Amino acid sequence: MIIDCHGHYTTAPKALIAWREAQIAALANPSAAREKGSIRISDDEIRESLEGAQLKLQRERGTDLTIFSPRAAGMAHHIGDAIASLHWSQHCNDLIHRVCTLYPDNFVGVCQLPQSPGVAPDNCIGELERCVTELGFIGCNLNPDPSGGYWTAPPLTDRYWYPLYEKMVELDVPAMVHVSSSCNPNFHATGAHYLNADTTAFMQFLTADLFKDFPILRFIIPHGGGAVPYHWGRYRGLAQDLKRPAVVDLIRDHIFFDTCVYHLPGIELLLKVVPADNILFGSEMVGAVRGIDPETGQYFDDTRRYIEQVRFISDADKQKIFEGNARRVYPRISRVRAVTT
Amino acid sequence: MIIDCHGHYTTAPKALIAWREAQIAALANPSAAREKGSIRISDDEIRESLEGAQLKLQRERGTDLTIFSPRAAGMAHHIGDAIASLHWSQHCNDLIHRVCTLYPDNFVGVCQLPQSPGVAPDNCIGELERCVTELGFIGCNLNPDPSGGYWTAPPLTDRYWYPLYEKMVELDVPAMVHVSSSCNPNFHATGAHYLNADTTAFMQFLTADLFKDFPILRFIIPHGGGAVPYHWGRYRGLAQDLKRPAVVDLIRDHIFFDTCVYHLPGIELLLKVVPADNILFGSEMVGAVRGIDPETGQYFDDTRRYIEQVRFISDADKQKIFEGNARRVYPRISRVRAVTT
Repeated sequence: MIIDCHGHYTTAPKALIAWREAQIAALANPSAAREKGSIRISDDEIRESLEGAQLKLQRERGTDLTIFSPRAAGMAHHIGDAIASLHWSQHCNDLIHRVCTLYPDNFVGVCQLPQSPGVAPDNCIGELERCVTELGFIGCNLNPDPSGGYWTAPPLTDRYWYPLYEKMVELDVPAMVHVSSSCNPNFHATGAHYLNADTTAFMQFLTADLFKDFPILRFIIPHGGGAVPYHWGRYRGLAQDLKRPAVVDLIRDHIFFDTCVYHLPGIELLLKVVPADNILFGSEMVGAVRGIDPETGQYFDDTRRYIEQVRFISDADKQKIFEGNARRVYPRISRVRAVTT
Repeated sequence: MIIDCHGHYTTAPKALIAWREAQIAALANPSAAREKGSIRISDDEIRESLEGAQLKLQRERGTDLTIFSPRAAGMAHHIGDAIASLHWSQHCNDLIHRVCTLYPDNFVGVCQLPQSPGVAPDNCIGELERCVTELGFIGCNLNPDPSGGYWTAPPLTDRYWYPLYEKMVELDVPAMVHVSSSCNPNFHATGAHYLNADTTAFMQFLTADLFKDFPILRFIIPHGGGAVPYHWGRYRGLAQDLKRPAVVDLIRDHIFFDTCVYHLPGIELLLKVVPADNILFGSEMVGAVRGIDPETGQYFDDTRRYIEQVRFISDADKQKIFEGNARRVYPRISRVRAVTT
């Protein structure tokens, strides 16, 4: 079985986007009523949005189950306030739940959190709990920069985040560290902001004792870990110079990289330097890069192909990357889908 | 001959730091006189600061000439105003000039610019011109984020920067894109901010037509290009999706990566995906990572060793990386040091 740990609902029906646009328009008028309202989307519209996209690509690529969350760029926590973020997050998460209910063999949910700049993440605990205990979700996406490119929140290792971590530990769910769109013109979202956040989070974890306080807290750093595996020597050296634990010890039970790296040499590097136990198969499909690589004739984001081509790791390690590690990092997945052999 | 394109004067005599500390203390008192003042450092103090560090390592590692600039983390453009930045930059650049005068076979200068948050970079033209025409410098370090981690300046492709680029073109000098220390607690300088800036700048260049306006403008993106070579497939795919020029065409005459990547698999990746014409040998010695890698018994930042171990590129390509490309990107270097064969 192949579990793709990184899929967003980038093809959601237009009614979802229309609701968000209306919400944003209403925010311009502070005296307008702040109703969550409802969104009318039929089951057929949901099926249609997936059949020609994620489901088709799952079949074509031979992957089975996608850990599925709302569109990352759509979270846009920097827009509006905490109430707006909550309403929007609930709608997005409810739609993911409908996807998972319609296609329980193909999708399992991860939630968007109702973060908002300057608002302590305590406000996310209720929605996380609702999604996990009522909707059967298995994790959350955590945005280290709700400001959308100005980085005004405290580092992820600050006690500011601890109440949310306590709930994650209680529910035994991990978080994927994932920023949203950037409203800072310096940062292209998928070409810079996403990768920068991955790199930034890793170095925050390296320089603090967060995991002493939370011995079972787990994070997935997506997009192959940003710049981290490419600079593995730099991080090993910095950890040594700073008298911090060795990088392999830091990550062992806590930090996991996905395989959203869209060329063979990058995947080879990842698999060469990062222990197989800390890598989860992911493709970000349908996501940041949608084209076909003229050099290979295959989709850039068909990351399974790259991994299959690597000869220097064992089949047992590949099995961990494709399935076993996801089950370990997201233990609630096994309540949804049994282990295959 | 081996030219190291990336060295900072991280071992400068204490009197330099003392001057800066006094300047910062004086900034707290706005009514204090704003004198540039002078710094007393003897030639022997300069020799002493280098003999046991950069010069010793040049000899041990068999490198010849270092393109040498003030300490990057020390620039701290976010401290004080443009006048403070100018005084500080002039002192730092003058000291680099003394180093290059004392050791003309070992060092050639690159200058710090007197950038300041919210101040258009026109204010840097005078110091760039002074350093190039009077002090014999061959390039500059350009900070894309003078705010020190809040990213409040326009992207490097904005017309805001054009007057400085016009002067760079006129003088035929390149810029290394290099941020300074971070005053944003999210970003560790050498473990996150530096690499993020590299990644960010590359994506800015990819999404704009800067090089149509400046056909001979050249940038070095240090630290192996941040996350870029590791995500080469992502960038090739994004360029294609966005209908931008192919990445190899974008970089050909304009963007160059150094080899400050501190492990063999990272260097192998860099040399595999980036054309040899766009790679310049660099070590950042004495810099971000100062220890010895217990896995190899060698210094992490002894990057020559990694390149020498790579078998899949030709000796001719290695010669370009070690010398030829630096002479092409920094043409003024050949006024200082003749080509060896």
